[in-house]
Amino acid sequence: MNQEQLQVSLRAQLRAFDGDAFDRLTRALPLADVVEALMAHPPEAVSSLLQAMRPKLAAEVLALLPSESQDELLQRLPQQVVVAIFERLPSDVRADLYKRLGQTAQSRLLLALGQMVRDDILKLSSYGEDTVGSVTSSDYAAIAPQLTVAEALAALRAGAQDTRQIEVIYILGHEHQLLGTLTLRELVLSPLEANVSELMQHNPVHAEAGWARHRAADMIRHYELLALPVLDDARRMIGIVAIDDAMDIEREDDTGRLASFGGAAPLDRGNLDVVNSSIRRMFSVRVFWLLILTVFGAITSTFVAHQAELLSNAVILAAFIAPIVDMGGNAGSQSATLVIRSMALGQLKLRWQDVWFIIKRELPVAAALGVAVAVLDMVLSHFSKGVGGDILLVVGLSMMLCTLAGGVIGALLPFLAKRLGTDPATLSSPLITSIMDMLGVFIYFGLAYAFLGHLLA
Amino acid sequence: MNQEQLQVSLRAQLRAFDGDAFDRLTRALPLADVVEALMAHPPEAVSSLLQAMRPKLAAEVLALLPSESQDELLQRLPQQVVVAIFERLPSDVRADLYKRLGQTAQSRLLLALGQMVRDDILKLSSYGEDTVGSVTSSDYAAIAPQLTVAEALAALRAGAQDTRQIEVIYILGHEHQLLGTLTLRELVLSPLEANVSELMQHNPVHAEAGWARHRAADMIRHYELLALPVLDDARRMIGIVAIDDAMDIEREDDTGRLASFGGAAPLDRGNLDVVNSSIRRMFSVRVFWLLILTVFGAITSTFVAHQAELLSNAVILAAFIAPIVDMGGNAGSQSATLVIRSMALGQLKLRWQDVWFIIKRELPVAAALGVAVAVLDMVLSHFSKGVGGDILLVVGLSMMLCTLAGGVIGALLPFLAKRLGTDPATLSSPLITSIMDMLGVFIYFGLAYAFLGHLLA
Repeated sequence: MNQEQLQVSLRAQLRAFDGDAFDRLTRALPLADVVEALMAHPPEAVSSLLQAMRPKLAAEVLALLPSESQDELLQRLPQQVVVAIFERLPSDVRADLYKRLGQTAQSRLLLALGQMVRDDILKLSSYGEDTVGSVTSSDYAAIAPQLTVAEALAALRAGAQDTRQIEVIYILGHEHQLLGTLTLRELVLSPLEANVSELMQHNPVHAEAGWARHRAADMIRHYELLALPVLDDARRMIGIVAIDDAMDIEREDDTGRLASFGGAAPLDRGNLDVVNSSIRRMFSVRVFWLLILTVFGAITSTFVAHQAELLSNAVILAAFIAPIVDMGGNAGSQSATLVIRSMALGQLKLRWQDVWFIIKRELPVAAALGVAVAVLDMVLSHFSKGVGGDILLVVGLSMMLCTLAGGVIGALLPFLAKRLGTDPATLSSPLITSIMDMLGVFIYFGLAYAFLGHLLA
Repeated sequence: MNQEQLQVSLRAQLRAFDGDAFDRLTRALPLADVVEALMAHPPEAVSSLLQAMRPKLAAEVLALLPSESQDELLQRLPQQVVVAIFERLPSDVRADLYKRLGQTAQSRLLLALGQMVRDDILKLSSYGEDTVGSVTSSDYAAIAPQLTVAEALAALRAGAQDTRQIEVIYILGHEHQLLGTLTLRELVLSPLEANVSELMQHNPVHAEAGWARHRAADMIRHYELLALPVLDDARRMIGIVAIDDAMDIEREDDTGRLASFGGAAPLDRGNLDVVNSSIRRMFSVRVFWLLILTVFGAITSTFVAHQAELLSNAVILAAFIAPIVDMGGNAGSQSATLVIRSMALGQLKLRWQDVWFIIKRELPVAAALGVAVAVLDMVLSHFSKGVGGDILLVVGLSMMLCTLAGGVIGALLPFLAKRLGTDPATLSSPLITSIMDMLGVFIYFGLAYAFLGHLLA
């Protein structure tokens, strides 16, 4: 069935509120594709269709939709349908949905839910944004330590339909504390009479709910896990972070880093999203940075304004201000971004040997780059504007020094950011450019005075 | 055991070439941590220790080391140890290692390997960089369709020790064509007498070896798979891409995008790595972009040079050139980066409705930002430099228009890049800044002539 046929079927089902036909459709095609096709339809129609299907399927569909669609549909669905869906959602999706509800909606929902679900929601939604707790799921497979492999398999068969993941099985003590882990693979490949407590991995690596969530992703990556247990202070299981959650965390962090470097780093939690964030938020986050950069620019322009006398005598100097100081920002942007990337990949850490290492590598590269751009610029300036003599020398030297300084400073700024406890990517390209502007006019006019100062005598 | 104790143990084992003690250490601690600690030691010592341990463990250790360490150790190890390790490496790691060997080393190795391993290496290493084939692993679990669940479990037990992953099981026909997939979870939770061909997912989603590798990562993410089968034209299994490979692909692509946006996008395959790339490569990639930007800057400076007459009459105008044109680049950097991020996350595609959507969102934001920075800059200019009247008006209007134009153009450039078939992130922040420089001086001096042209009369 191709895209068009899929849409035709969906339209028919939506019009007829045919939940059963939708059910059959999702058995024939991957659910992710059906849900994606569903997103092209207006929320009123989708909401009606959700009410017409069995609640478990409705929960699966809702879990695959983006946040905005989820919130909108929840507002349209009648209360009893919302309750039925909430009881069947994966625990981490459920906690996230709950957190985004308004306060009245939250209270109404909690009153209507059974105690187990209610306690689960309250617990998981209590963790702050960007913590491990906020991405924890409480649907995991747990067994007692005294079971044999055969008994464990039977226990899994009995209770496994609602677990998020059984590829890793958790062996718990009677107070819910984590005794060990066992992968489904190991369980399946072991003799049926073997005892689970002999096979399990003792002292498995784990995370705590209060940690920054990227630490969970880092551990899953480092130890090549399919899931990571999340424990409280008494080593009791709170839940798990699964590998696909780790993928989402890394993707959000990596792409958020890109937005920060472009100069749009939000100061609060969460990323700026050009598709979903409100126009107001887009403005407020960006204006903060642009106003800071305006102040930096005012410092630069005040300095240049004081060079009025020199400029009057050699007006041509004004032509080169922007390109020369920009080159410092260009070189700095390049080196900063490379260092930020290496830090994100764990190749560089905040220690003196890494700072030294980077300086030793960047110095020759930035110097060579400076010479290359200076030579090209002098050649172009001479032939396109007839510039020669002292002015050409000033332009060339400034270009070289600005590039060199820009490259080295750009490479060091991420370390400074880390030292100050900020995410290095917050030191955006526009910020680096503005800093190098200030330094650049200083270098440029300093050299101009050195070589052309006699004009003022 | 903490870090220090771990290092003490390792040092002792390295000194004594004690492979057995190392073996016991890796049963007590996660292998990833032991290998990480091993990296602090010189390659000669590590190489000797590798020779003293059983080859399977040596292969596991080697697989966890970074590429440079792997290459260095392979050079130091005697040929028969290399052969023994190669026979036990995961197939995808093995193919990558092989590709990095020199041609003589490759021939020598192939001659010494058994036919199955040799054919496997040759097949997997035949795929180009950044293709799905280059990240494919041929160690997967395969069973015949007529088996019952009980027989399948027995088959897995018999042959599973070398498979990379058995969480997904592939049901193959007699010509190796993929008939269906079954997760280990489904297998374990099904009745023992059920037939595998009834339980399996028919027509599973799959990738082809020639596709760009990010497509495999996208599919694994979209369909929430633990592994994705890779097929040839006749639907025969070549291998699988596992979810942790997908994580690595996404991480490299996302962080590479950051480096590109900073202005350091390599034109060939592969990313620039400030820690590992040669100084020569760092220079050659970066100088390419900086020279292009120098040419752009020369165009800008030539234009400004032609405004010499106006500048002579109002030298103060020179002070504002850099800050004003920079603001265009700042706003453009912000909007471009947000659009690039949304494209990477799949929220925006190359279609007119998305272009329109972005324009409608960016126009009011960029206009408001323009007004905000213009007002601040006029206030600062008046009080810090005593600027007033017409010049203040020119400065304010230019600031506003540059910000507005920068924001809108920055938001549209990624679409243009996609249209031209380039990765949007290649349109780096320095490039955007340089483009806005050229436009900015045009706007600035255009307005200056409009309001101050009478000075020249």
